[in-house]
Amino acid sequence: MSSMLSVELDRNSEEPIYKQLIRQIKMQIESGNLSAGTRLPASRELAKDINVSRISVVNAYAELRAEGYLSAHAGRGTFVSRDGQSVGSVTNGAVAQSSTSRAMHDYSIRDMMKLARRSDIINFSHGSPPPEFFPMQHLQSAINTVLERDGASAMLYERPEGYGPLRSGVRDYVSALGIMCSVDNVLITGGAQQAIDLVLQALVSENETIVTSAPTYIGILDVARARRLQVHSIPMDEDGIRLDCLEYYLMENSPRLIYVMPTFHNPTGKVMPLHRRRQLLNLAHEYDVPVLEDAVYHEFRFEGEPLPPLKALDTTDSVIHVGAFTKMLLPGMRIGYIITSNSQFDRLVRVKQAADISTSGFNQRVIHMMMQRGVIAQQLERNNRELKRRRDTAIEAAKRYFPEGCKWEVPQGGMYLWVTLPKSGPTAAELFITAVQKHVSFAIGNVFYVNGQGSRNIRVNYGLQHPDRIEEGFRYLGDAWRELTEKYNEIENSPLL
Amino acid sequence: MSSMLSVELDRNSEEPIYKQLIRQIKMQIESGNLSAGTRLPASRELAKDINVSRISVVNAYAELRAEGYLSAHAGRGTFVSRDGQSVGSVTNGAVAQSSTSRAMHDYSIRDMMKLARRSDIINFSHGSPPPEFFPMQHLQSAINTVLERDGASAMLYERPEGYGPLRSGVRDYVSALGIMCSVDNVLITGGAQQAIDLVLQALVSENETIVTSAPTYIGILDVARARRLQVHSIPMDEDGIRLDCLEYYLMENSPRLIYVMPTFHNPTGKVMPLHRRRQLLNLAHEYDVPVLEDAVYHEFRFEGEPLPPLKALDTTDSVIHVGAFTKMLLPGMRIGYIITSNSQFDRLVRVKQAADISTSGFNQRVIHMMMQRGVIAQQLERNNRELKRRRDTAIEAAKRYFPEGCKWEVPQGGMYLWVTLPKSGPTAAELFITAVQKHVSFAIGNVFYVNGQGSRNIRVNYGLQHPDRIEEGFRYLGDAWRELTEKYNEIENSPLL
Repeated sequence: MSSMLSVELDRNSEEPIYKQLIRQIKMQIESGNLSAGTRLPASRELAKDINVSRISVVNAYAELRAEGYLSAHAGRGTFVSRDGQSVGSVTNGAVAQSSTSRAMHDYSIRDMMKLARRSDIINFSHGSPPPEFFPMQHLQSAINTVLERDGASAMLYERPEGYGPLRSGVRDYVSALGIMCSVDNVLITGGAQQAIDLVLQALVSENETIVTSAPTYIGILDVARARRLQVHSIPMDEDGIRLDCLEYYLMENSPRLIYVMPTFHNPTGKVMPLHRRRQLLNLAHEYDVPVLEDAVYHEFRFEGEPLPPLKALDTTDSVIHVGAFTKMLLPGMRIGYIITSNSQFDRLVRVKQAADISTSGFNQRVIHMMMQRGVIAQQLERNNRELKRRRDTAIEAAKRYFPEGCKWEVPQGGMYLWVTLPKSGPTAAELFITAVQKHVSFAIGNVFYVNGQGSRNIRVNYGLQHPDRIEEGFRYLGDAWRELTEKYNEIENSPLL
Repeated sequence: MSSMLSVELDRNSEEPIYKQLIRQIKMQIESGNLSAGTRLPASRELAKDINVSRISVVNAYAELRAEGYLSAHAGRGTFVSRDGQSVGSVTNGAVAQSSTSRAMHDYSIRDMMKLARRSDIINFSHGSPPPEFFPMQHLQSAINTVLERDGASAMLYERPEGYGPLRSGVRDYVSALGIMCSVDNVLITGGAQQAIDLVLQALVSENETIVTSAPTYIGILDVARARRLQVHSIPMDEDGIRLDCLEYYLMENSPRLIYVMPTFHNPTGKVMPLHRRRQLLNLAHEYDVPVLEDAVYHEFRFEGEPLPPLKALDTTDSVIHVGAFTKMLLPGMRIGYIITSNSQFDRLVRVKQAADISTSGFNQRVIHMMMQRGVIAQQLERNNRELKRRRDTAIEAAKRYFPEGCKWEVPQGGMYLWVTLPKSGPTAAELFITAVQKHVSFAIGNVFYVNGQGSRNIRVNYGLQHPDRIEEGFRYLGDAWRELTEKYNEIENSPLL
C-alpha cells in the first residue's frame, strides 16, 4: 500500500469497514498527512494490503470522491483533491457532497430574479428561445388551415392521450432520433414541464426520493417542492452526472426515479458521452430505477457529432423520454410529449386526465400541421446556425470582458453558458444586483441546486440576444464585477476598519 | 316522548350514548316497531325525556339521516323514511351512507363508456357543449387580431399567474356575479380541471381527506385517485349536499377541503338555495375548512332567478372559486381561472409553475380578445336559449319514451338530466350495452360515486344534441330498456329454470 496512507481497522466495531475507511482517509487529508495530489493505492491493491473486501474500498473511494476529498482520473488512478474540498466549499465552508434534502429553495433569489423582467434589460436570465426565431408566418398559415379543415371540432375536448395524428407525428419524429415506439407509447402534454410533472406524479409518492444532478433543471426542483418529494443530488464532472457517486448511492438507497438531461444539460450545457449513457442504463437496469430523460435541447446541436438519446439505447424499458416543441418551435403553444412503455402508459393517461382533461386539441392540431409541412426541420437548421453565431460572439465577449479567473466550457449546442466566477470577489447574487442596475441580467447559480451551492456560478442564455446585445451585455457584466470588487477593496482598506 | 319509540340506555357502557341511540333506533326501524312515516320526537324533547345531552340526540339523528333511516322536513320534524333504506340500498343491499374511501373507481365502467366515442352514436354521455354553439368566426377574428397586434411575443412563455389583461378581464367578469376581488387574486389555469387539481395539490397532502357530495363531478374523483387522496362523500337531497350530514362529519373529522358545485350540479343539475349557501359558509367558517366552489355551469341558467355564487357571499375568505371559459365558450382553448385570497395565492402560483410553467399565453390572449369584444355575453344568451329548447324537448321525450317508474327533476339550467331508473329491470350498465348497440349512449351513474352507488342512475347530456336527435335518442333508450326487460322476463319464465 501507499507509504503515505495508514489505516487501522477495528474489525469488531459496529461501524462498517467502508465507513471506517472513509473516516480515516478524511482525517488524514484534513490533518495534512495526505497532501493534495497524493496518489492513493488502487482499490484492489488496498483491499489486499489491509485484508478487506474490494467493495468496501470501492465504496469508500466513491463516497470520498462524491464529497470532493478525492478525484479519479481514468487510467491514472485516484488522487487527493487539491485542497481536500470541492467547489461548493468556497462558498459556505462545508464540503460539497451528494446530499438528500427536501427540495427547499431560496425564494428570495428567485424573487430577485423577477427584476430581470424589466423591459429595458438585456436579459440573459430567462430560459426562453428568442422570439425572432419563431416561424410566425407558418403559424398563421397552419392555424388557418386547421380552422378551415376541422372547424368547430378543433375546439372540442381532446382525448387525454392526445390528438391521434400528432401522436403518430411524434412517433415518426423520434424514430429519426433512433427511438422506436408505437403510437400507443406517445402521450401529448402541456410542454416538457407538464410531462415531467405527470411522470413524477405517476411514479413517486410524497416523501419518496428522486435523484438528479447538481446542478439541475430548476423545473424538476419546482415539481419536487410542489409535490413534497425528496431530492438527492449527485455531483457532475465534465461528462455529466457522476456514475460512481450514483452507484454508491443506489447501493444503499432506493430512489424512485433518476432525472437526467443527457444532451446540452440545463444549466451547464454538458453532453453525456456515449459510454456513460450506456453505463447509466446498465445502472438503472441493475438497480431497477427508471430514468427520466429530458431531451428538450437534444436537437440544439451546432457542433460535433450527434449522440443517440438514452431512450434509443434502452433495451430494458428503463427510460421514460420527454421532449417538446417549445424551445425548438413555439414555447407559447405549450406542446410536449412523453414516450414510455406500455406498463406505465395507462397510469400516465389517468394522471393526465386528472391534471387538465387534455392539452388543447387546437394547439395540438396546429403543431401537427407545422410538423407535416416540414417547419420543424427548417427551424432547427436555421436556429442552430444562428445559435452557433451567438455562441461564438458570447465566447469572444466573455474572454474580453469577464474578470480574470472566470471559467467556462464552450458548449457545442443549446443556449447556455455556465460560468464559474473567481473565488474572491462578489457572489453571483451580489453581482446580479449591480448588473440589473446596469440593465443586464443572468440566472444566479444557486437556483439550480437544492442545498445552497452554486453561489459562484451564473447561467447566461446567450441564445436569447442578438450578437451585438451579447457583446454589450457581457461588457456591462464585466463592468459590474469590477465596480463591485473595487468597492469591496475600498471597504477592506478603509482606515475605519 | 313519542309513544312509538322506546329507548333503554346503558350509562355505564363504553359505547357512547349517541351510538347506543343510533343502534336502538335502527333496530326498531328494521324490526318494524317504527314504521315508515312515523314522526320522531324533536331532539330537545327526546334529550329531556331520556336525560341525555341534546348533542347526543342531534348526532344520532344526523347519522340516521345520512344512512337513510330518517328524513327531516324543515318545520315539520324528523320522520322514519318510507322503507328504512335510501336509494343506494336498492342496488347493492347495503344502506346508503356517507362514507370515506380512497377514491377507487370502476375502470371497467369508464372503459365501457369509451364505446360511446363511436361517431355513429347519438352521444348523451360526454360532458361537452355542442360544437354548433362555438363562435368560430369570432375565434378566427380574435386570433388574427392577436397575432397582428402581438406577433411573436404572443408565443413566449407567459407568467405562471396568467396574462395580465385576461386576469383583469376575469376580475371584471366575476364582479358582475357579485365577487369582489383584486387582479392579484386571479390565477389563470388550463380549464377548470387544472384549477381543481392545483387547489387540491396546494391544500391537500396524500392520504388526507376531501369532502364532496354523492354523486359528484367525476373530475374531482379523478384528481383524488391520481393524488392518492381520501374522499368522504355526503348524500344530497333536493337542495344539494346535506348539511346535517356534513356537520355531523365535521364534528369528528378534519377534512382539508369541501368541494361543491352549488349551481347546476354535475351530474344532478341541482341548485343549492340561498339559505343553504349561507349555512354552508357558516359551517365552513365554524369548522375552518376551505370550500372549493366549482362554478363552471353558473351562468347556464335559462329559467328561474339567478343566485349569487358562494364566493360572493363569502365574508371570511373561506371560499376558493373556480370558473372557466370552456363549457360556455370553447372547451378546446383550455382556459379557466381560480379566485382566491392572498394567503393561498403564492402557494398556488408555485404549484402552477411546477405543473406546466404557464397556460398558453396565446390562448389566453385569444380568450381575452373575445371577452373584450363581448362574445361571451352574446354566447351565453344564445346558448341558454337553445339549451332551454333542448331541455324542453328532452323532458317531453323522456315522458313519452322512458319506462314507467323512471324519475327525474326538471333542471332550470345546465346540460344534464339525471334519471333514476325503476327498481326492477336492467341497471344503468346493462342498459348501456344495449343502448350502444342501438347507437345511443349516456353516462352510467356509478362513475359519479366512490362506492358503487348510482347503478340505477343515468346522466343524459341533452345539451349536446339537436332536438330531433334528442327525440330519436330517447326513443332508442326506451326501446333498449323494453327489449332488455322482455329478455329478462323470458329467461325468468323459461321452463328450463
